[in-house]
Amino acid sequence: MNALNVAEYTQTLGLQAKTAAAQMARASAATKNKALRALARLLRDNVAALAVDNARDLERATAAGLSAPMVDRLKLSPQVLETCAQGCEQLASMPELIGELQGLKQQPSGIRVGQMRVPIGVFGMIFESRPNVTIEAASLSIKSGNACILRGGSEAIESNKALARLVQQALREAGLPEDAVQLVQTTDREAVGQLIAMPQYVDVIIPRGGKGLIERISREAKVPVIKHLDGNCHTYVDDPCDLDLAVRVTDNAKTQKYSPCNASESLLVARGVAADFLPRIGAVFAAKGVEMRCDPEALQLLGAVEGARLVPATEQDWFEEYLAPIISIKVVAGVDEAIAHINHYSSHHTEAILTRDHVHAQRFLREVDSSSVMVNTSTRFADGFEYGLGAEIGISTDKFHARGPVGLEGLTSLKWVVLGEGEVRS
Amino acid sequence: MNALNVAEYTQTLGLQAKTAAAQMARASAATKNKALRALARLLRDNVAALAVDNARDLERATAAGLSAPMVDRLKLSPQVLETCAQGCEQLASMPELIGELQGLKQQPSGIRVGQMRVPIGVFGMIFESRPNVTIEAASLSIKSGNACILRGGSEAIESNKALARLVQQALREAGLPEDAVQLVQTTDREAVGQLIAMPQYVDVIIPRGGKGLIERISREAKVPVIKHLDGNCHTYVDDPCDLDLAVRVTDNAKTQKYSPCNASESLLVARGVAADFLPRIGAVFAAKGVEMRCDPEALQLLGAVEGARLVPATEQDWFEEYLAPIISIKVVAGVDEAIAHINHYSSHHTEAILTRDHVHAQRFLREVDSSSVMVNTSTRFADGFEYGLGAEIGISTDKFHARGPVGLEGLTSLKWVVLGEGEVRS
Repeated sequence: MNALNVAEYTQTLGLQAKTAAAQMARASAATKNKALRALARLLRDNVAALAVDNARDLERATAAGLSAPMVDRLKLSPQVLETCAQGCEQLASMPELIGELQGLKQQPSGIRVGQMRVPIGVFGMIFESRPNVTIEAASLSIKSGNACILRGGSEAIESNKALARLVQQALREAGLPEDAVQLVQTTDREAVGQLIAMPQYVDVIIPRGGKGLIERISREAKVPVIKHLDGNCHTYVDDPCDLDLAVRVTDNAKTQKYSPCNASESLLVARGVAADFLPRIGAVFAAKGVEMRCDPEALQLLGAVEGARLVPATEQDWFEEYLAPIISIKVVAGVDEAIAHINHYSSHHTEAILTRDHVHAQRFLREVDSSSVMVNTSTRFADGFEYGLGAEIGISTDKFHARGPVGLEGLTSLKWVVLGEGEVRS
Repeated sequence: MNALNVAEYTQTLGLQAKTAAAQMARASAATKNKALRALARLLRDNVAALAVDNARDLERATAAGLSAPMVDRLKLSPQVLETCAQGCEQLASMPELIGELQGLKQQPSGIRVGQMRVPIGVFGMIFESRPNVTIEAASLSIKSGNACILRGGSEAIESNKALARLVQQALREAGLPEDAVQLVQTTDREAVGQLIAMPQYVDVIIPRGGKGLIERISREAKVPVIKHLDGNCHTYVDDPCDLDLAVRVTDNAKTQKYSPCNASESLLVARGVAADFLPRIGAVFAAKGVEMRCDPEALQLLGAVEGARLVPATEQDWFEEYLAPIISIKVVAGVDEAIAHINHYSSHHTEAILTRDHVHAQRFLREVDSSSVMVNTSTRFADGFEYGLGAEIGISTDKFHARGPVGLEGLTSLKWVVLGEGEVRS
């Protein structure tokens, strides 16, 4: 396709999505859940056929010299497909959110005013490599009564096409429009530029991928973006606190997994407990090979820990999201300095205070300007499933519309409903 | 100022606002309400002094040949100032919204998860002519615990400066940072371009003014915009309906005031009641000099109405926001055609169905994709005060974040709060 054709093609997808969105908005809960269960069945029935399409992507990826972990992420194994099928069934079992009428109250004029939850309309999702995101996005879109346009990575194009065909078959079986879930069939990069610049058709864009992709999309989009940038999360060990709890939780926050965005990248310790606490957590980190980038005070207190990999921290370290066995460590005077440090250096994702002091806990919760604020627990809990949202569309690092882990509600909007009996305005 | 100086100046305002926002976020309800009551007092105490500054704007406007209504909008009369003072006092009496913790529930891991309402941070407001918007924006900002940067029209610069001085005095009296409300002191247009492109300092932009201003800002902003474009509102008279109610409500929706965005610009009538209803509403419109732009069927049914100003409607008429004594009129087969017509031609602001049919009412509420949907009442009710919001920041024609009339909540955000007792993720 040349650029003109890509533009025309993307516009067609947009128009078709908008038409389908109107039908999805009035679909009954039973119909949407029927489509989700049909999709689960089709995924299980087509494990072998999907393996054939998937193999073409895997061969191409191997031939192109992609790394083994990258190739692994492309794989549609029976296990991956079963997880997708179960996800669809779980969504089908969740309560319906569309049409809920809330807060209906009579006003002095006599009219009754409330708000109704409705689908947002059309969302575009742009994602890299993992083809199972096609099913995740499609199923969230169906449950929430939206239409979506999906643009996956070129490495997974054959797998994505095969999955999208199953989604459209499931929609047809339930009597829903197949344009409710459309996959961009071209790998032309121009299609992304078009997709994010059609406010007449697309209501919101959700990118999933590397920071470079998300920054580019945020910069160029002409529609709202639910975006997730970095997670420079902090754990602050307050004075007074339960040091056993602090060692256990800080360890978990840093080392349970190094790659997630909700892992703690920076440890702040109140001066009053630093001499007791730092050697203990330092020994844990030393045993796990976690490099500690320390301010001078922490460096001194950790000096005697056997096998500790200690490095003096630079100013840049306080901003860093390592996603690796590295943590920055700073001794602070107390809760005031901790809050000020976090609000300055954090990426406003997730921060935790470990404390016995009620006033400090309340101040931390109120004053730390991050999408998740926690007391006496691990930052690793910042997650849609752990928060009970049932499904997670993404994690937003913005304050507008949705903040932090975003569930199905993030794909909906509230419109005003006014019920009258002939009232007029005077 | 040259462009470089304007950029530097605007950045300084941004940094100062961000610093003040952190202090405002932790201010107590009592402190914020004290500032609002101080502002009300200062406005009343300075009626004479404000008249002097205001006179300079009025003279300049008259000399520049501005129309009498435009000059009138600039005027800070004692009545206008008293209304502003009462607005501040009303806000001071409203319940506090910041810090509310909602939905705290225990999850299977043991953590308790809820959401806390917090200020959004810094908002920028860009507005034209009326200087009283300075007080409205400042008081909403104080109540909601935000900081704001205000950019008024150049015609009102002296009045705005004088009002901003009083706002800062009120903030100081209450012990709050005066940078919590800053007025852009230069009338250089470049400052607007800067203000809407500082995502590091400004969280949301709220423009108030003509469609041209709002379109420009939406196009160029690098931060979210709560914007209000046009209001092409519809009233649909269904079959069956109470014709007396329909005449009264349709009359109110169109003629109670012609200029507001929530006035009905288009009338749809079900074929089954058209022959009875149209001559009656036609006579009302004829008596008030309202021009009727009709489809062929309506034209015929209205032909016998004495003094009616009838014009055949063009395709463009169905899209039009007249803000004038003009209405477009179309006969439709029934509720299906009415919903389809509205979803195609409407600006998605406010639409009403007048009906006795419960199923039609429910379908209209659910399927019409507008920010306000109404049954048996006048579209003129689409308003923050009529909806019981206490104060209105603006009306949003978007679906993202806030939709329709936006109250103080539109200037807030929900962050996640997690309370634990040492839980770790496994």
